[in-house]
Amino acid sequence: MENAAGKPIKCRVCRRAGEPLLIEEIQVAPPQPWEVRIKILCTSLCHTDVTFWKIDIPPLAAFPRIFGHEGVGVVESVGENVEEVKAGDMVVPSFVAQCGECRDCKSSRSNMCSKFKAPNHSGLPRNGGSRFKDSNGQTLNHFLWVSSFSEYTVLDVTHVVKIGDGIPPEKACLLSCGVSTGVGAAWKVADVEEGSTVAIFGLGAVGLAVAEGARIRRASKIIGVDLNPSKHDLGKKFGVTDFINPTTLGDKPVSEVIREMTDDGVDYCFECVGSQTVFAEAFKSSRAGWSKTVMIGVAVDGLPTSIDPQDLCRGKSVTGTYLGGVKPKTDIPHFVQKYVNQELNLEGLISHQISFTDINKAFELLEQGKSIRCIIWMDK
Amino acid sequence: MENAAGKPIKCRVCRRAGEPLLIEEIQVAPPQPWEVRIKILCTSLCHTDVTFWKIDIPPLAAFPRIFGHEGVGVVESVGENVEEVKAGDMVVPSFVAQCGECRDCKSSRSNMCSKFKAPNHSGLPRNGGSRFKDSNGQTLNHFLWVSSFSEYTVLDVTHVVKIGDGIPPEKACLLSCGVSTGVGAAWKVADVEEGSTVAIFGLGAVGLAVAEGARIRRASKIIGVDLNPSKHDLGKKFGVTDFINPTTLGDKPVSEVIREMTDDGVDYCFECVGSQTVFAEAFKSSRAGWSKTVMIGVAVDGLPTSIDPQDLCRGKSVTGTYLGGVKPKTDIPHFVQKYVNQELNLEGLISHQISFTDINKAFELLEQGKSIRCIIWMDK
Repeated sequence: MENAAGKPIKCRVCRRAGEPLLIEEIQVAPPQPWEVRIKILCTSLCHTDVTFWKIDIPPLAAFPRIFGHEGVGVVESVGENVEEVKAGDMVVPSFVAQCGECRDCKSSRSNMCSKFKAPNHSGLPRNGGSRFKDSNGQTLNHFLWVSSFSEYTVLDVTHVVKIGDGIPPEKACLLSCGVSTGVGAAWKVADVEEGSTVAIFGLGAVGLAVAEGARIRRASKIIGVDLNPSKHDLGKKFGVTDFINPTTLGDKPVSEVIREMTDDGVDYCFECVGSQTVFAEAFKSSRAGWSKTVMIGVAVDGLPTSIDPQDLCRGKSVTGTYLGGVKPKTDIPHFVQKYVNQELNLEGLISHQISFTDINKAFELLEQGKSIRCIIWMDK
Repeated sequence: MENAAGKPIKCRVCRRAGEPLLIEEIQVAPPQPWEVRIKILCTSLCHTDVTFWKIDIPPLAAFPRIFGHEGVGVVESVGENVEEVKAGDMVVPSFVAQCGECRDCKSSRSNMCSKFKAPNHSGLPRNGGSRFKDSNGQTLNHFLWVSSFSEYTVLDVTHVVKIGDGIPPEKACLLSCGVSTGVGAAWKVADVEEGSTVAIFGLGAVGLAVAEGARIRRASKIIGVDLNPSKHDLGKKFGVTDFINPTTLGDKPVSEVIREMTDDGVDYCFECVGSQTVFAEAFKSSRAGWSKTVMIGVAVDGLPTSIDPQDLCRGKSVTGTYLGGVKPKTDIPHFVQKYVNQELNLEGLISHQISFTDINKAFELLEQGKSIRCIIWMDK
């Protein structure tokens, strides 16, 4: 692999909220101590990129910025003190850090590294500042400590996960965020068990990965809820046993239908849309006694989560997660192995594959509800 | 014990919301099949009685009504099919049922019997209707399936817990609801473990029982939060290690103080007030990664529970409970044994003991924040 030191690098930059990304030639600085410079092979677009792309009020907005947080790449060079990876290693970036030393990293109960706290920072977590400058010398901000919409990017080593070569890059890319989030939510957050009932609101890549996680755990009923009827057939590939399109119910709430289909509510409920209204309906769809309703969709509209306290007191639980409770360095290689062993199905999640120069097409497809995951190849 | 069949019985009746209770002579019908008539020895006043006493809008309001749901008594007679208890047995009533046969009763994860659903009904759960009539033949409603503010009351056998004679009645009375709720919340809902940190909002009987539960589990820090400074010394008896009076903090939120005192928040947080505002502050006081915030206080003001979804996604959980996750017939006898073994401290929870004829005094004391538990003796 060519050494990128000192050379201009093509990159997609977003200069203002909601505007199409522009390809520019930028400078990507060498990695500082504890940092890793990565050549991105492919990246994909997640709803969270789109959500932040639209926000124009700081501090969440920090333009100009290089988006992208789901990808896979090869280590180009490493800074001082980095011993965990070396040039040539295949890695996936993770917006969640794992320092391995803090109380959270040492506990099996948490994936929220308390030394390098998630999420959404515009610089690098340890040394600060940005490694990106445009041709005029202006600083370009990072995004979620990853910024994968660039041929090269720099990450703190705590955000870099070494994986083997046994998985194709486009499949590994899915494990960088979306699939790990969904499978992790089912396995690590909800801990779905055999024979249990599950409802999933929103069958995008994350929701389908929740279904896959529940299928592998042998849930007896996996109810998918989506406004898009094409998700019915797609969901079946991932274990969805029942499908509800809310637009076909008239005035009947989804929660009422789900309670009728189950023992007065499901054991586990997942919100994968990022809407507090949907979350409230998910909560109502969960049964009393022991149910868990898990918030996965990232909501940044400022609305609070609002639920009925008397319903909560009937023994229901509500929780939320970033990256599905997954400790990236520990769990993502495990998911890779599950894929290699043909235990984890990723077929059907990649709806489109395009060239980096067409990246704005990926935004269009996602906004139009036409894509599940659109793989964006850097060199094609 | 005298057989009460057919005889008029003195009883405190509340005819209208918020009005002092009146002593009247009423008829308590014999137990129907699966029902048990109990002679109450003593009862006590819980905030939930006061909350419902003030509500004047149906369906929560159902006057005239006999309140009271925490007590202890002796079985006077049983209806057909009742084999579990017999005349002369010492029992405590429970507003939570345990049928023993439904999916919830058979699961170790739930105390929300799905055959006889809690809470707040004005009649009896199985046969329906009321067993109380006034001297004019007007029906008086039950409350929480218990109605312990009566010399005699009738309960479905699923709401009756047989206990041994080794515990004084006034101590057993506390286990009927308040103490079981608090200790259960710490042990069964939160599952507080050795070395963990705990915050308790509201040091009434329930909050103090949470502290006692956390003390027994060897929590390293138990922070009590209460507006009443006298709770500081009282709390120490139940293991409270640190005390916060929010009125002494100026503009600084309680949650900020708690986060500073701990590892950026406590592991377990309990709301024992019944205020959604307090609950939101409790949630903010809990740490990311694995914390649980437990709603215990019964809020019936119609306000939703409102929390920050992004904070939830940092791995926090929220749950609520009736009776602290306690399966009454399974767990209350266990708590009795803990008391008999001198492992469970109940000293200091009984602040007042009065005669049944003075019951309105108990309302005054609780409303003025002067009592923890006021034991109301039926025969004194």
